[in-house]
Amino acid sequence: MSAPIRVSILGATGYGGGELLRLLLRAPEFRIAFATSRAKGGTPVGGVHRNLDGLTELCFSDPSREEIAEKSDVIIGALPHGASAETLSWFIDAGKRVIDLSGDFRLRDAESYKRWYEHDHPRPDLLARSVYGCTELNAERIAGAQLVAAPGCFATAINLALLPAASAGLLRGIPVVTGLTGSSGAGAEHTATTHHPTRAQTIRPYKVLKHQHTPEILQLAGDAGSALGGLSFIPISAPIVRGILVSVSAELGGAMSQKETAALYRDFYAKRGPFVKVLGDREPECGSIAGTNYAEVRARVGEDGRLHVVATIDNLLKGGAGQGVESLYLMHGLDPAAATSPLSWPGMWP
Amino acid sequence: MSAPIRVSILGATGYGGGELLRLLLRAPEFRIAFATSRAKGGTPVGGVHRNLDGLTELCFSDPSREEIAEKSDVIIGALPHGASAETLSWFIDAGKRVIDLSGDFRLRDAESYKRWYEHDHPRPDLLARSVYGCTELNAERIAGAQLVAAPGCFATAINLALLPAASAGLLRGIPVVTGLTGSSGAGAEHTATTHHPTRAQTIRPYKVLKHQHTPEILQLAGDAGSALGGLSFIPISAPIVRGILVSVSAELGGAMSQKETAALYRDFYAKRGPFVKVLGDREPECGSIAGTNYAEVRARVGEDGRLHVVATIDNLLKGGAGQGVESLYLMHGLDPAAATSPLSWPGMWP
Amino acid sequence: MSAPIRVSILGATGYGGGELLRLLLRAPEFRIAFATSRAKGGTPVGGVHRNLDGLTELCFSDPSREEIAEKSDVIIGALPHGASAETLSWFIDAGKRVIDLSGDFRLRDAESYKRWYEHDHPRPDLLARSVYGCTELNAERIAGAQLVAAPGCFATAINLALLPAASAGLLRGIPVVTGLTGSSGAGAEHTATTHHPTRAQTIRPYKVLKHQHTPEILQLAGDAGSALGGLSFIPISAPIVRGILVSVSAELGGAMSQKETAALYRDFYAKRGPFVKVLGDREPECGSIAGTNYAEVRARVGEDGRLHVVATIDNLLKGGAGQGVESLYLMHGLDPAAATSPLSWPGMWP
Amino acid sequence: MSAPIRVSILGATGYGGGELLRLLLRAPEFRIAFATSRAKGGTPVGGVHRNLDGLTELCFSDPSREEIAEKSDVIIGALPHGASAETLSWFIDAGKRVIDLSGDFRLRDAESYKRWYEHDHPRPDLLARSVYGCTELNAERIAGAQLVAAPGCFATAINLALLPAASAGLLRGIPVVTGLTGSSGAGAEHTATTHHPTRAQTIRPYKVLKHQHTPEILQLAGDAGSALGGLSFIPISAPIVRGILVSVSAELGGAMSQKETAALYRDFYAKRGPFVKVLGDREPECGSIAGTNYAEVRARVGEDGRLHVVATIDNLLKGGAGQGVESLYLMHGLDPAAATSPLSWPGMWP
Repeated sequence: MSAPIRVSILGATGYGGGELLRLLLRAPEFRIAFATSRAKGGTPVGGVHRNLDGLTELCFSDPSREEIAEKSDVIIGALPHGASAETLSWFIDAGKRVIDLSGDFRLRDAESYKRWYEHDHPRPDLLARSVYGCTELNAERIAGAQLVAAPGCFATAINLALLPAASAGLLRGIPVVTGLTGSSGAGAEHTATTHHPTRAQTIRPYKVLKHQHTPEILQLAGDAGSALGGLSFIPISAPIVRGILVSVSAELGGAMSQKETAALYRDFYAKRGPFVKVLGDREPECGSIAGTNYAEVRARVGEDGRLHVVATIDNLLKGGAGQGVESLYLMHGLDPAAATSPLSWPGMWP
Repeated sequence: MSAPIRVSILGATGYGGGELLRLLLRAPEFRIAFATSRAKGGTPVGGVHRNLDGLTELCFSDPSREEIAEKSDVIIGALPHGASAETLSWFIDAGKRVIDLSGDFRLRDAESYKRWYEHDHPRPDLLARSVYGCTELNAERIAGAQLVAAPGCFATAINLALLPAASAGLLRGIPVVTGLTGSSGAGAEHTATTHHPTRAQTIRPYKVLKHQHTPEILQLAGDAGSALGGLSFIPISAPIVRGILVSVSAELGGAMSQKETAALYRDFYAKRGPFVKVLGDREPECGSIAGTNYAEVRARVGEDGRLHVVATIDNLLKGGAGQGVESLYLMHGLDPAAATSPLSWPGMWP
Repeated sequence: MSAPIRVSILGATGYGGGELLRLLLRAPEFRIAFATSRAKGGTPVGGVHRNLDGLTELCFSDPSREEIAEKSDVIIGALPHGASAETLSWFIDAGKRVIDLSGDFRLRDAESYKRWYEHDHPRPDLLARSVYGCTELNAERIAGAQLVAAPGCFATAINLALLPAASAGLLRGIPVVTGLTGSSGAGAEHTATTHHPTRAQTIRPYKVLKHQHTPEILQLAGDAGSALGGLSFIPISAPIVRGILVSVSAELGGAMSQKETAALYRDFYAKRGPFVKVLGDREPECGSIAGTNYAEVRARVGEDGRLHVVATIDNLLKGGAGQGVESLYLMHGLDPAAATSPLSWPGMWP
Repeated sequence: MSAPIRVSILGATGYGGGELLRLLLRAPEFRIAFATSRAKGGTPVGGVHRNLDGLTELCFSDPSREEIAEKSDVIIGALPHGASAETLSWFIDAGKRVIDLSGDFRLRDAESYKRWYEHDHPRPDLLARSVYGCTELNAERIAGAQLVAAPGCFATAINLALLPAASAGLLRGIPVVTGLTGSSGAGAEHTATTHHPTRAQTIRPYKVLKHQHTPEILQLAGDAGSALGGLSFIPISAPIVRGILVSVSAELGGAMSQKETAALYRDFYAKRGPFVKVLGDREPECGSIAGTNYAEVRARVGEDGRLHVVATIDNLLKGGAGQGVESLYLMHGLDPAAATSPLSWPGMWP
């Protein structure tokens, strides 16, 4: 066995960072070089991520970027939007391979970035070099990329719901999406919207028709083969911790039977690894894939002739750190679904 | 004060029956004559509905229909579909006023009933005499009705989302609805889908594109003024106990601005009592109306020119027993929103 | 009917204030004079307490204390500890009747206050004039009091579990209590301990053996007739919103049979109003009393000869605002359990 | 690498069986021979345990006991009490090594079994040969055992809370335990007590002072070194899916300082593998160990001189299948905490 690949996680105290740590601490091919944190340098990672308490000696640290670059083969950014591009661009310029979990390198169009993220992109020159880390569409390009932008959580679920039809050039118009997310999507910092008394027993929309994942979904659909006119997306806070469920309805370019639709989805994902399960007998749900890198998808054609797809993922894994680690495997010619890969761990039921 | 109106509740051990009891025990104008149950005759109602334990001496009973008829002014049915029509038709024939919480008298078309409920209607002759108990559209007809069919829970939320646009003749095509329901909608009997370990932390669709409330929604939209071509409805089980949230998207017959849409909804409900709150500054949610007869609605027009409405109700109250009790008030010329009416109780926050 | 009694609520934006508003807006004998808030003056109360949105025109305000005193018959404080005594003492000195939901006037001993609340009491001279608002023990004294201190939430549940045995002089030693509380007990401000992702699916102790309600429980037991040597109290955060359940184990001064114990509890509460339900056939639970002013209690004697009691309350109602409003009724010679009193509203099941 | 050890799971459709499958499908030293089910023979295991859907080709089967014996090195029983002893005794007589997750072989005393399980033990002759599978006390005996009885879920948490003090001979009298359990402890069959509407937002005791795990806890304490006079155990249903938290209070034989107590617990578990984490800076909770084989324990001495311990486990893993698999590793001289063991997987946070 060759020396493990050295990975540094920047901004490792958040939920994305925590999941990267949980996975990579059990991935035999990789070794964590640094788990950085400005505020928590010196603290054991188990002091923040309680699941890791006692399971590792690793501590957060705050080394110089030069030291990180010297001792790391790959840098994974788990930083907030904006700060992420600022920090990671130095490593990109230094020739390091980089995976970014933030939204900063997902869009190729700096104008679109500015519109949706409400500030200028600090390094628009890098956007063209970034590969959008949708492993089901871009696996080959990811393998050779220096910079991979892991897709957003809601975007991943909607991408997976649309991708087979988009790739067949079948999508038309402006799809309608109602999507539900667990509270872990809001991150590790407590806020008014994650206060338990007013979150635990309610269901509440937010950012209706203006969620920032909209442009990356349209970009991917176009890359796949279907230029869309927009996306009407109603995001909703749900009272679960982990998981996203999206209900997607889209106009089709031509008549499709239920049988053809099912076959289209089944065949598309059959060639793209084990992480997307196409269901026919039961419905996708959050509980069966929580804590895992797996997705569940079921597609139907309605009496209205429209495509109706339900898809589920774990927002922090397939919708974040897990999909990022998939890219990490692919960038090193490794199989993310190998028996020894933490991405192949089954979840819990119940 | 005149003698209280005598009300009997048939099938009072279920969740609908429990809510009828909770409300009517505190409604000064009404008195419960019988709370019937075949299995629980003689048991105090608080032995089943634990919220009422110690608050009333009332017991379930199983009297003859003749005795019920003699001692009751109104009969409210909280029985399962099918059994409800069988039982209630005797009281209707006997000239009693009847409110039915089941689906048996909601559809005017016996063929449609057969298709969606999968058995022949036992008394199709009564269908034409039934008034659909949507208090926001049919208040006057309810006031004079002998037989009122309280709308279904999901139907109520979708009705309220569509009604202003439907009444203006603006709806076209086949609306798309993604709807979420709490577990109390499944009723008081435990089932595989309400087993806590596999219900508490998941979100799971069911009856996709074939929920039995579809035809009553189409019927009401037509009554209001918009003939629709169908309804693509994706119902979803959510891990809350009380509440429904629907996200409705519909094609409009003409261009509407956001301002016009907001005004349409505000003006429509301003004239129809206090139970539907039209929101502009925050989103409808389940937590703010759980346990009450209130609904929350917010309407938008998207860049796609479509109408997008979110509406919330408590499935057992505005979506069931509460709306039924509204009809009870209207049938007796009483104000369901009076200060002494239990329908005007505020809910809890949090 | 005479003019309604004018009540002002100081600090009305928190959860205690919200419950006072919800109750008093539906209590015919009372009228809210002011609902004060420094930060939210001018905001409709429904803008903060979403359950009240559209149900009242009342706005928060920030009047001078002179104006409050002039236009109010009673002042209810829903302010934080420390600030409460500072603010309310002016009204007490001005001769107003005052009910305090905070911990500031519960303890008669200023030294004990300092030890448990970690600061000097600003007005120790008032402590002797305060009546501890346990309505089951002190109803007569409350009726004549100028200053009532509503008991703490955990304290209420433990008081109700111990009171019959304490009043019979039967308690000995240092009882052991394991208590569970819902997240609403933490208040309306979001904190790390109420962040939904790390609160929703866990159970976690806090303040073990050092909860500040300990001394008021010992004081009440002593007042009732049993001087205790201390209290070993393990408080635990539970993933519900509303409710407290306590499991209390105490040494008895003499041998008691199960039958005698059950009779002792039944007889004690039979004479003390309807709000405490003594159960024999089922267990106390949170769900059956959530949202109400009722408590459930069940007492047993174990093979160990110890008393084991389980008691449940809603932490914001019987454990806070509800018990405070009970005192408000008693102070005016009114029946808190009257049919028109919001304290007699049944809760929900489910 | 030698040929994998062949394991058959009897009664594999329940939650215990599901966890055994999840673990053993990822344990390189073991291979599942049969996952038996009378009712589900031929069904893919992923059709029942949705977390495994698509992750394995394995199907449930219903082979003869002879075939099971021939093709298995070890039999793990995940059957109901009573049925378990009936079924497993044949394999024991046939010389097979057996691990039983049921309560049938935990007690050495057939009279005690009869009292607590309310039927005669079918094979009392085997009781003396069974080793109680508490890996922290009996690791050596388990290694050589033919028959291991995995401890009960509540028993495990209470055992771990008492064991260091019991082993030091320090426990006296009748400890008091208040314990909380998640709904998965009730098993895969839906029941009235796991109906989501009346389970999700309540906390409710059951089997108060008569839980069947009582005698195995007393037996283990005696084995460890402290003969107890009984156990006063108040079990409580909590609205989580996974996890047990116990709050244990016990009389001590002599004065212990807080420092001595902490050292006793730390030192005891330091020598007994990594699965029990002794905490000093934070409290044990369910969320940090859910889905894992780890336990968290914190011990204190109160002002009352009593020992107060809080302990948490996942009821299905350390409290069931996980602890059973620990025994499986030990019986084959393997390290259950090896990096490749699924027992060393970290859980999720959040």
